Amino acid sequence: MKVYKIPEATVMRLSVYSRFLHQLIDEGITTVSSGDIARGVGVSSAQVRKDLAYFGEFGTRGVGYRVDELYGHLMKILGLDQAWNIILVGAGKLGSALALYQGFAERGFHVSTVVDVDPKRIGTKLGDVEVEPISVLQERVKEKNIRVGVVTVPASAAQDVTDLLVEAGIKAILNFSPRVLKVPHRVILRNVDLSVNLEVLSFNLALNR
Amino acid sequence: MKVYKIPEATVMRLSVYSRFLHQLIDEGITTVSSGDIARGVGVSSAQVRKDLAYFGEFGTRGVGYRVDELYGHLMKILGLDQAWNIILVGAGKLGSALALYQGFAERGFHVSTVVDVDPKRIGTKLGDVEVEPISVLQERVKEKNIRVGVVTVPASAAQDVTDLLVEAGIKAILNFSPRVLKVPHRVILRNVDLSVNLEVLSFNLALNR
Repeated sequence: MKVYKIPEATVMRLSVYSRFLHQLIDEGITTVSSGDIARGVGVSSAQVRKDLAYFGEFGTRGVGYRVDELYGHLMKILGLDQAWNIILVGAGKLGSALALYQGFAERGFHVSTVVDVDPKRIGTKLGDVEVEPISVLQERVKEKNIRVGVVTVPASAAQDVTDLLVEAGIKAILNFSPRVLKVPHRVILRNVDLSVNLEVLSFNLALNR
Repeated sequence: MKVYKIPEATVMRLSVYSRFLHQLIDEGITTVSSGDIARGVGVSSAQVRKDLAYFGEFGTRGVGYRVDELYGHLMKILGLDQAWNIILVGAGKLGSALALYQGFAERGFHVSTVVDVDPKRIGTKLGDVEVEPISVLQERVKEKNIRVGVVTVPASAAQDVTDLLVEAGIKAILNFSPRVLKVPHRVILRNVDLSVNLEVLSFNLALNR
């Protein structure tokens, strides 16, 4: 499947829709309209139809969508019809929280390796995974066919860690450090700044000052 | 200042632009073009101009923007020309990581209160802040003029905690729990699902399967 130029905001909404559909499946609901989805997740129904239209024809006019079918389509589009092994670099508080975060496993992301440089952390366990020295990074990426790396180290170490991940053959990096990272064009990089979420709130609060 | 119907994606980009401008200030750079900003943060220069145009006229054609002036405008738009006190509910691994997250303080978000129900956590310290019992929630929100609440409790407790925050007069809630929360219309709610960030990566990786 080749799909081009999908806005990132659309991808993020598809993720939200798929969670809502999963909830409907749990509740035994078998068909759903774009209006139901819209109300369920808090966007307009025109937006739902537009987002789904990027990926061809779903649903039947006047009847709506079959929940299980649409859910399956969305999971495939999101690349969630397979499991992804992840390596997490940095076992500090945020790294530990992410390694234990239930939400990842539920969506097929398996934190299969955690590495750190701190001798006090190496050998400790985060759930089922033992923190290993960073020297095993390349070996683990190869043997476990890991494509995705998560960086939760201090800013000062982030670029070095990223270079190691790239060298090991990692295809996509999620960066939680506050450092702007350089990667080759072939590697997908996504920066997460947790304070951005608070800034969307303060923006809205400031509107009413 | 009243500004209407700004897409959330724009608000998030303004946040990114403001960080980039802060970096330029640190480097002693005084003027910048939309092209410079675009290259610096990885969007098109048309996008930069469009985003800034929501908020009136900035910059001079052919000269660009004064860095300090544009930075000041953006911080004001984002509501970051003031500090915000925050209450964090839930001092587990994720809550602890957030309480200690440097990125919040840098943008004027001050985690002034942390509460939990677990006796083992109450009385422990997260940086300068002592974890307090949840019974003090209402009192702390009033005495510290807290407007923003962050929910990092298990799904089963999330709605109860949210009701407490709303009752205490909180105006905006950032929800890290995997539960869909109900709040009155006057309260701003934002859900953070950390796995969405991984799904944007898996979407892009899946395109190349």
